[in-house]
Amino acid sequence: MIIVMKKNATNEQIERVVSWIKSVGYMAHPSSGVERTIIGAVGDNRGKEHLKVIESLTGVEKIIPILKPYKLASREAKEGNTVIRVGDVEIGGTGFVVMAGPCSIESREQMMESAFIAKKGGADIIRGGAYKPRTSPYSFQGMEEEGLKLLKEAGEKTGMPVITEVLNTSEVDIVEEYADILQIGARNVQNFALLKKVGKAKKPVLLKRGMMTTIEELLMSAEYIISSGNDDVILCERGIRTFETATRNTLDISAVPVLKALTHLPVIIDPSHAAGHWRYIQPLTRGALAVGADGVMIEVHPEPEKAVSDGGQSLKPEKFYRLMDEVRKLEQFMRHEMKVSQ
Amino acid sequence: MIIVMKKNATNEQIERVVSWIKSVGYMAHPSSGVERTIIGAVGDNRGKEHLKVIESLTGVEKIIPILKPYKLASREAKEGNTVIRVGDVEIGGTGFVVMAGPCSIESREQMMESAFIAKKGGADIIRGGAYKPRTSPYSFQGMEEEGLKLLKEAGEKTGMPVITEVLNTSEVDIVEEYADILQIGARNVQNFALLKKVGKAKKPVLLKRGMMTTIEELLMSAEYIISSGNDDVILCERGIRTFETATRNTLDISAVPVLKALTHLPVIIDPSHAAGHWRYIQPLTRGALAVGADGVMIEVHPEPEKAVSDGGQSLKPEKFYRLMDEVRKLEQFMRHEMKVSQ
Amino acid sequence: MIIVMKKNATNEQIERVVSWIKSVGYMAHPSSGVERTIIGAVGDNRGKEHLKVIESLTGVEKIIPILKPYKLASREAKEGNTVIRVGDVEIGGTGFVVMAGPCSIESREQMMESAFIAKKGGADIIRGGAYKPRTSPYSFQGMEEEGLKLLKEAGEKTGMPVITEVLNTSEVDIVEEYADILQIGARNVQNFALLKKVGKAKKPVLLKRGMMTTIEELLMSAEYIISSGNDDVILCERGIRTFETATRNTLDISAVPVLKALTHLPVIIDPSHAAGHWRYIQPLTRGALAVGADGVMIEVHPEPEKAVSDGGQSLKPEKFYRLMDEVRKLEQFMRHEMKVSQ
Amino acid sequence: MIIVMKKNATNEQIERVVSWIKSVGYMAHPSSGVERTIIGAVGDNRGKEHLKVIESLTGVEKIIPILKPYKLASREAKEGNTVIRVGDVEIGGTGFVVMAGPCSIESREQMMESAFIAKKGGADIIRGGAYKPRTSPYSFQGMEEEGLKLLKEAGEKTGMPVITEVLNTSEVDIVEEYADILQIGARNVQNFALLKKVGKAKKPVLLKRGMMTTIEELLMSAEYIISSGNDDVILCERGIRTFETATRNTLDISAVPVLKALTHLPVIIDPSHAAGHWRYIQPLTRGALAVGADGVMIEVHPEPEKAVSDGGQSLKPEKFYRLMDEVRKLEQFMRHEMKVSQ
Repeated sequence: MIIVMKKNATNEQIERVVSWIKSVGYMAHPSSGVERTIIGAVGDNRGKEHLKVIESLTGVEKIIPILKPYKLASREAKEGNTVIRVGDVEIGGTGFVVMAGPCSIESREQMMESAFIAKKGGADIIRGGAYKPRTSPYSFQGMEEEGLKLLKEAGEKTGMPVITEVLNTSEVDIVEEYADILQIGARNVQNFALLKKVGKAKKPVLLKRGMMTTIEELLMSAEYIISSGNDDVILCERGIRTFETATRNTLDISAVPVLKALTHLPVIIDPSHAAGHWRYIQPLTRGALAVGADGVMIEVHPEPEKAVSDGGQSLKPEKFYRLMDEVRKLEQFMRHEMKVSQ
Repeated sequence: MIIVMKKNATNEQIERVVSWIKSVGYMAHPSSGVERTIIGAVGDNRGKEHLKVIESLTGVEKIIPILKPYKLASREAKEGNTVIRVGDVEIGGTGFVVMAGPCSIESREQMMESAFIAKKGGADIIRGGAYKPRTSPYSFQGMEEEGLKLLKEAGEKTGMPVITEVLNTSEVDIVEEYADILQIGARNVQNFALLKKVGKAKKPVLLKRGMMTTIEELLMSAEYIISSGNDDVILCERGIRTFETATRNTLDISAVPVLKALTHLPVIIDPSHAAGHWRYIQPLTRGALAVGADGVMIEVHPEPEKAVSDGGQSLKPEKFYRLMDEVRKLEQFMRHEMKVSQ
Repeated sequence: MIIVMKKNATNEQIERVVSWIKSVGYMAHPSSGVERTIIGAVGDNRGKEHLKVIESLTGVEKIIPILKPYKLASREAKEGNTVIRVGDVEIGGTGFVVMAGPCSIESREQMMESAFIAKKGGADIIRGGAYKPRTSPYSFQGMEEEGLKLLKEAGEKTGMPVITEVLNTSEVDIVEEYADILQIGARNVQNFALLKKVGKAKKPVLLKRGMMTTIEELLMSAEYIISSGNDDVILCERGIRTFETATRNTLDISAVPVLKALTHLPVIIDPSHAAGHWRYIQPLTRGALAVGADGVMIEVHPEPEKAVSDGGQSLKPEKFYRLMDEVRKLEQFMRHEMKVSQ
Repeated sequence: MIIVMKKNATNEQIERVVSWIKSVGYMAHPSSGVERTIIGAVGDNRGKEHLKVIESLTGVEKIIPILKPYKLASREAKEGNTVIRVGDVEIGGTGFVVMAGPCSIESREQMMESAFIAKKGGADIIRGGAYKPRTSPYSFQGMEEEGLKLLKEAGEKTGMPVITEVLNTSEVDIVEEYADILQIGARNVQNFALLKKVGKAKKPVLLKRGMMTTIEELLMSAEYIISSGNDDVILCERGIRTFETATRNTLDISAVPVLKALTHLPVIIDPSHAAGHWRYIQPLTRGALAVGADGVMIEVHPEPEKAVSDGGQSLKPEKFYRLMDEVRKLEQFMRHEMKVSQ
């Protein structure tokens, strides 16, 4: 951490900061420039909380942290990429993983139909929501355990792993019983109690970035899960909130290469929630593949116009099949001709 | 809801939309302009979910909602302002309510000292965090139940009501046992399970706006609480996330008059978290009062430089006393000379 | 335009709005719903300014515009895509156009070297800045006319068209004399005097989106140029400003398919300015191609560590050659195997 | 400037950075921590451009600037506040300055009427737009020189100074001829050619913050004006662009105390453009006064419903008079009872 003193800071003030740094177990390296003195505080993290309050000492202009606040999620903590195996599927390996299915599980028929569409299109994992986080208390809140059962059945019938969202600590156990991957939604990315709880689960966790979560905060949330005991975390960029309203959120596609540089965890993209309109799923999925993401999560619905949630951003079966053809061709090309493994 | 058709939409497409609207129990009012046809859909909310998916019908350009999605929180739902009584304190009435205390409860001594500072300064309610939502899993996570006990004791010793944050559904009961007001933090503003749970509590709820939450979404979250049975909701603006980094967040002070126009609920401001620096608390508290807020929530600490969280944004006792003198004078002036009741 | 009346609006207030609409030459279509009355105002744009002020009439809650405010830039105004020819290069046609060169023109040697690097790599157009918009008055402001001469010479020696930025109305004529395409930078996207002036130029204009410009505003700025007489406008997404600081700006890659849906104009991407770091140029260029952009603008410098501006985001020659190999292969694949023409 | 090396940076890489720093005339202070080495670069600003490119040297993780990039605008550059005198009005002194008038000058009658309303209400300065920056090329673009003449006449008849916006370098001379203060609008805050030009004018400049401009960038733009020779710069916060759409922009009221800490220049607020609705002008003006701004700029129009631009955010005369009564009372109270001079 670096402490920048004010231009007119007195020697006494500088001394006080140096003493403080030492008193919390750090070494202090002051260096005086033409205009002001800066002081490096070097040490481990024991006194970090106390170091921050140096900002309130007289004569201090600001403090600048140097070290990244996450450790286990950091690329420096681990050689190579984390590859997560779920059934026959590898996430973070050489393939491009497609998770597909409806936003909400609405009925047995709709779930089974969606699952067979996902399978026919060549998806790897089936998604479907049983507990739904809805902005309005008057909107459909999900089929809950009954939905989980339908999802599990759909997975068994198609021979594919399934993923679903868990909203609350009290539901983690039951969701873990039915699902192969636990999803933490964007609105819960800093629900720390929930992060700790899924950190104790035995199943992988897909962690969605919040609409206003920085990349550093996303990695801190992953750190909560890993430091609670669960190494299998998949990160998911799903659009951030900006001033632009032409799309529902703004897909931060640069987050893929940035995360790849900072962490060993797999990174996927959710173009359905980012754009909020089925029209943009095809180009954004191509973009996700080209930019180096490990996969995508896509909403597919047998009859989007009858969906009880997010129908406007779900693909119809025919469009999904065409998209998947394209995705698999492009994946092959990139792997063989461009030596790019996702 | 208004459906805007594409410029080149065919009569057949328009007919299909009209049929759809009728099939979900609404009336359809098409009207053809020079360039395109728009169709009004009039009715109650039963078919609302299905109406939304009209966006995926061919020929539709976009849909525009007309009605506000919240009802109970709306000013139209209730004449007059909601005034919440906690002990001798009225929130949302004619007075300007000051909630003061440390960010985290750290020890018996620190809590009692802070409480007496709050009392001496003339605050109305004592705040203090027992369960702390921290971005880093390595930061101090709060004293939990022991902290709740200290907070309650501080309230009893000073004769003041107390407020503290609840993070998780499983802790609502215990927090309700000790606290007079339950606080929902910015990161949990869309933790819907938690909102429903505090909606069943018998104590008032202070709901903080999230860094990424629109005013409409904040009111929808209040609607979750009210529709679960708890009418006593206090809204709190605490800064939104923007591109500006000179302050920790950007205090959206206009949210006060905007909320006053839209809802009957009390609205307070948290200048400490918005600005992230004690230096700005005084001017922003004056601004909060002048703009018409019902109160503020301020961090005070006997020794900010030793605080285990957010020390840099806590006021020292002397500064707090001076601020309170100013606040009370300005409050009197505005009430008597400008006929402004907060 | 739709006028939404307040819930408790009186018949008299509704009548007054209807009269107002008629008085400015529109037709009024009131329709009364369960909760409130809405009034459609149908007509051409003559009275538009006056319609907006309906918002200040008593009883009006809000007004909602229906028509897009741009016309000539709209896809509805023109069948097919605008293809702009500059020398042998087509922008907006079937190829993926690469514009490459240094941020600033610094010397004859550096400009010529950069141009030959661009040519060797297979770029289509040479870029280079002679007038530089710099945040600090103390930074290098560009070689001005001398730079323009060097750029022109570089274009002639390599047989490639050249593009450069114009900052001020008084420099449009001289820049037009030397350059093949005039660039309007992000900070000038709403410099309306400049837009009108380049709208009278005989050369194509590349219009960069501002850091906080909505897609609609960008199209309105294009409308300024087209309505002044210049049809040849190329749009460029270069990152918008958000809360995320891991990249300099946030590349809004969805802007490509969104713009392709709304306008007939070509759309390119500038990954160098968006990301602010050379490391991310390769993946983002691949993403730009896959998502359907018509080209990219990339900073290349013979010795980035000696560049006087934006050195950190410039590619070294070897990295540029490798990127270009990849780009041309991917372009071929997409055109032939996926039937995607950029 | 501080250079943070990567965790695994070699001694050779560290040496290379140190040599580079020295080669551009700075001193290098390396200091090795537990995890990584950081290097302080101390010196004056001669080599600053070259220092930045250190970011592209191998082994470097990031660079962190320490010094503020502006000098003349900085509080450290000048003791006391800059007080600007225009006629009998002092801006930045002990009074709260109100600039009032219509958004656009539309006719002789409307301008004169507005000026007398401003005078009757007790405003200090008359505002009015002759050159209008409009998002749409089809909107009214202003009366230009004829408008300037009407504004000047209005100032003479009422004995008040006048302020108007200048959009383009070619119009600075004529605007300076008629106006007492030159206004640079939000969209031109980084129109550097225009900043340099008004920096050579003999009249004070009111510089509006852009919707996307950080506080540091605003001060850099002020630095352009001051370093060109004009010390009389007034800063104006008028709302920044965020995700919130309940107001047109988000008034960043904290910018007032932040700017007061960083610069000696006067700071005013424009609540009309920030909120975009007349309803919020009164509370925000009170807030501006309480938070310590030096004044406000308010839109007033004799008949807002007939205004050709921004009618919805203009105050009617009666509302303006009531607001001014309140402002003057509150100003007196704050000065005498709270010892706060604006």
